[in-house]
Amino acid sequence: MAKQKTAIVPTREDNYPEWYQQVVRAADLAENSDVRGCMVIKPWGYALWENMQHALDRMFKDTGHKNAYFPLFIPKSFLEKEAAHVEGFAKECAVVTHHRLEDDGQGGLKPAGELDEPLIVRPTSETIIGAAFARWVESYRDLPLLINQWCNVVRWELRTRLFLRTAEFLWQEGHTAHATREEAVAETRQMHDVYADFAENWMAMPVIKGEKTAGERFPGAVSTYTIEAMMQDRKALQSGTSHFLGQNFAKAQDIMYLSDAGQREHCWTTSWGVSTRLIGGLIMTHADDDGLVLPPKLAPAHVVILPITFKADDPDAVLAYCEALRDELRSQAFAGRAIEVEIDTRDIRGGEKTWGWVKKGAPLRVEVGQRDMADNSVFVARRDQDAKDKQSVPRDRFVADIRDTLQSIQDNLLAKAAAHRAEHTRVINAKDKFYKFFTAKNADQPEIHGGFALAHWNGDEQIAEQVQKDLSVTIRCIPLEGELERCGFGDAAGEGRCIFTGEPSKGRVVWAKAY
Amino acid sequence: MAKQKTAIVPTREDNYPEWYQQVVRAADLAENSDVRGCMVIKPWGYALWENMQHALDRMFKDTGHKNAYFPLFIPKSFLEKEAAHVEGFAKECAVVTHHRLEDDGQGGLKPAGELDEPLIVRPTSETIIGAAFARWVESYRDLPLLINQWCNVVRWELRTRLFLRTAEFLWQEGHTAHATREEAVAETRQMHDVYADFAENWMAMPVIKGEKTAGERFPGAVSTYTIEAMMQDRKALQSGTSHFLGQNFAKAQDIMYLSDAGQREHCWTTSWGVSTRLIGGLIMTHADDDGLVLPPKLAPAHVVILPITFKADDPDAVLAYCEALRDELRSQAFAGRAIEVEIDTRDIRGGEKTWGWVKKGAPLRVEVGQRDMADNSVFVARRDQDAKDKQSVPRDRFVADIRDTLQSIQDNLLAKAAAHRAEHTRVINAKDKFYKFFTAKNADQPEIHGGFALAHWNGDEQIAEQVQKDLSVTIRCIPLEGELERCGFGDAAGEGRCIFTGEPSKGRVVWAKAY
Repeated sequence: MAKQKTAIVPTREDNYPEWYQQVVRAADLAENSDVRGCMVIKPWGYALWENMQHALDRMFKDTGHKNAYFPLFIPKSFLEKEAAHVEGFAKECAVVTHHRLEDDGQGGLKPAGELDEPLIVRPTSETIIGAAFARWVESYRDLPLLINQWCNVVRWELRTRLFLRTAEFLWQEGHTAHATREEAVAETRQMHDVYADFAENWMAMPVIKGEKTAGERFPGAVSTYTIEAMMQDRKALQSGTSHFLGQNFAKAQDIMYLSDAGQREHCWTTSWGVSTRLIGGLIMTHADDDGLVLPPKLAPAHVVILPITFKADDPDAVLAYCEALRDELRSQAFAGRAIEVEIDTRDIRGGEKTWGWVKKGAPLRVEVGQRDMADNSVFVARRDQDAKDKQSVPRDRFVADIRDTLQSIQDNLLAKAAAHRAEHTRVINAKDKFYKFFTAKNADQPEIHGGFALAHWNGDEQIAEQVQKDLSVTIRCIPLEGELERCGFGDAAGEGRCIFTGEPSKGRVVWAKAY
Repeated sequence: MAKQKTAIVPTREDNYPEWYQQVVRAADLAENSDVRGCMVIKPWGYALWENMQHALDRMFKDTGHKNAYFPLFIPKSFLEKEAAHVEGFAKECAVVTHHRLEDDGQGGLKPAGELDEPLIVRPTSETIIGAAFARWVESYRDLPLLINQWCNVVRWELRTRLFLRTAEFLWQEGHTAHATREEAVAETRQMHDVYADFAENWMAMPVIKGEKTAGERFPGAVSTYTIEAMMQDRKALQSGTSHFLGQNFAKAQDIMYLSDAGQREHCWTTSWGVSTRLIGGLIMTHADDDGLVLPPKLAPAHVVILPITFKADDPDAVLAYCEALRDELRSQAFAGRAIEVEIDTRDIRGGEKTWGWVKKGAPLRVEVGQRDMADNSVFVARRDQDAKDKQSVPRDRFVADIRDTLQSIQDNLLAKAAAHRAEHTRVINAKDKFYKFFTAKNADQPEIHGGFALAHWNGDEQIAEQVQKDLSVTIRCIPLEGELERCGFGDAAGEGRCIFTGEPSKGRVVWAKAY
């Protein structure tokens, strides 16, 4: 059978990494800039990020956090204060050493005005925010301090991919200080839950909630909680992390409070963040061989109306019909936003126009021509169905059902992603099967290309390192109690024996290749 | 008569610059950070900025602009492309020269991994966005290109003041490309109007709209439009600028389009921006000797409820009464936002609590005690009136009137600021009077401390330079046609003769000391 023609070339199966780049390009989400590793986020991609921001920001505010803004630059000495942290972040960062450009005598410019102390462009802000917290916190009455920042950060990555790994990226970083360990742990866990909620109920991207092993923790953290999603190539994407920092940063930076009993105590702090990387996750969860597929709750436009005026006797009447439809749709809200509708009146070929919106992932496309108008109907295509699968629907029913239709697309995307994850997650009980799962190439093997392996492990980091060396597979997380059941992997829950050593294990961990 | 006690010491009259710092501090808006010239914007200040952003963002989107995001870093060679631009911005900027820190052998870190080409932290993004535009624009069908970016920028300032002049600040920068000169000029003027609308109708800060003289233009612009506001010390604050860039940047960066007629033409571009500096303007327009005064349309909280529970028989009942009041208020919207209400239940002295909110500038404070509850009334204080001027108001009337009350405070602040400007703006027809206006110290002189002088000028930049040297006074703008009339200075409109040379002048310009 001849291969079906697809809007994106190559397809996922033919060349997954290249397919990803082409989807980003075809949907006009972002592009590489002239600055190595830094991307330009284009309007359609940025609008998606704004919608993510709005939803997350509301969740942060509903849990008592306030936004603030801290300096872009971190003095070198600040980074040096926490030993593990500097080890993790000093390696690749942008260093500002001068504060002026002056004539180089050859018609160009050269750096001048050397700084006494170099400044680092923030890779994350624990140290600079910690310094503010040390000033702000005096007594237990000032606690908890619950702060969030939306900003740009820079980590000098050599191999970059749009959204997934870029030198500069946009994110939010929450930073909180508490009087007790228990409160700080509860905060860490709460924000972990917020991220999982956002991933599943807004992005329609199912995640496994778990804790990172010691080797995978945030530099300076006592424990790191993560949400891990499976992409369509069955690799894992770490999509959000929440860190319990214990008193490490508080001790390094003197974040202290006077307790109710009059004692000076160190605070307990947390930090947590998600970034524009989520857009990469969204793409790789839902996009198909025809381009992007957007979950309606986050789509910059829910509905795109395509007026077919070229064969109309009265193009203005068709346009007026479209505008009235738009206004009626806009008067309704879905997921806390007015329904957003675009009427595409561009003077280009109909096929190009339609496929443009398919590739951009608009949840609903509505074609309206003279005949639809006469019938008081609209011609509707859902992005979660085949592009050629269009239906004539009475206009008033389409309007009345719009929220249900959008919710059904949202639910459908989540269900599809969950089914994909279920299909490629294996309970594995022996080392040879584990190695085969990640190396088998035979199409007859159910383990082709791997996926998530749920396997027992004795907790020995050296074994994890060996597996990483052999297979490029890492432990994505130690699932939280009850999490395997929640994710539909109840069979995998419970104690057992390490598949590498036979030693006892309290529970299976999630292994996968990862971005 | 003994001086009245004020919440802010010193008062405006005693020491205006120090008063400003103390208002920022007392209102908990921002503070200096450990990084020279970079501020920390605290939650109350950041919430104010968020409200400004939301209102402006809606105005930008309503005028057809889309948000996007461009790299933080600008390659040195990009800055070198436009001669006037590099002259204006290369002088003081943050230069990234290395991409790593490594062990310096003495227990510290030193910069390593020198970059082939230094990167500049963006002081403004014409060059990096222009490079993207050059890629994006192919034909006239791609125009106009209407883009806005919300981001941080860095200009290495030596003398900084919170919000007014900081090394790093937050802003938006609009960048647009057009097929014709006329369209680009119309865009420049449109955004100039949007800024004036925002300043007057949201910030309650009256502005004069005008064009900058050649000496005060944005580096690289053909013309710069500005909105100039008078602060309470009678100095001008340049509050927003909109630049018509002609084809200067398009030529430097090859931003070209294929015209309808098949010709390759250079685009015409614009840029326009406002920043966190507006917060400084808001403070210096409305704050008084008791602290910040917030225009209701931008206030992070419209109403603060202070439950007086310590003398209540039933504190829980008082609190429940407050919560019901809050919920009723919140169900109403003002200026596009749900009315925001804070109930302050902190366990601190009542006076401290009340004055805390006075200093933070909350438009309405509502005290509720046992007796008010029994009377079904509330005890209301407006921030635009004397702090001791409180009124008992029937609860239901307070709720029913809330939007009118907030609008009346908003109007009141604008009227007060306009009256202040009118009082300190002088039509001046002679050089000696002009010099006296800006130098007189005698309290009997109506010209004490100066203000805005509306005076004729022949257009000679050398005269402007001399005045600046003599008086530190600059031409703030050449008012647009009809603008003096709009601002209530109709008497000053029309032709005349330069007060320095006697030469003919088409219209008066605005002179003032400025921030």
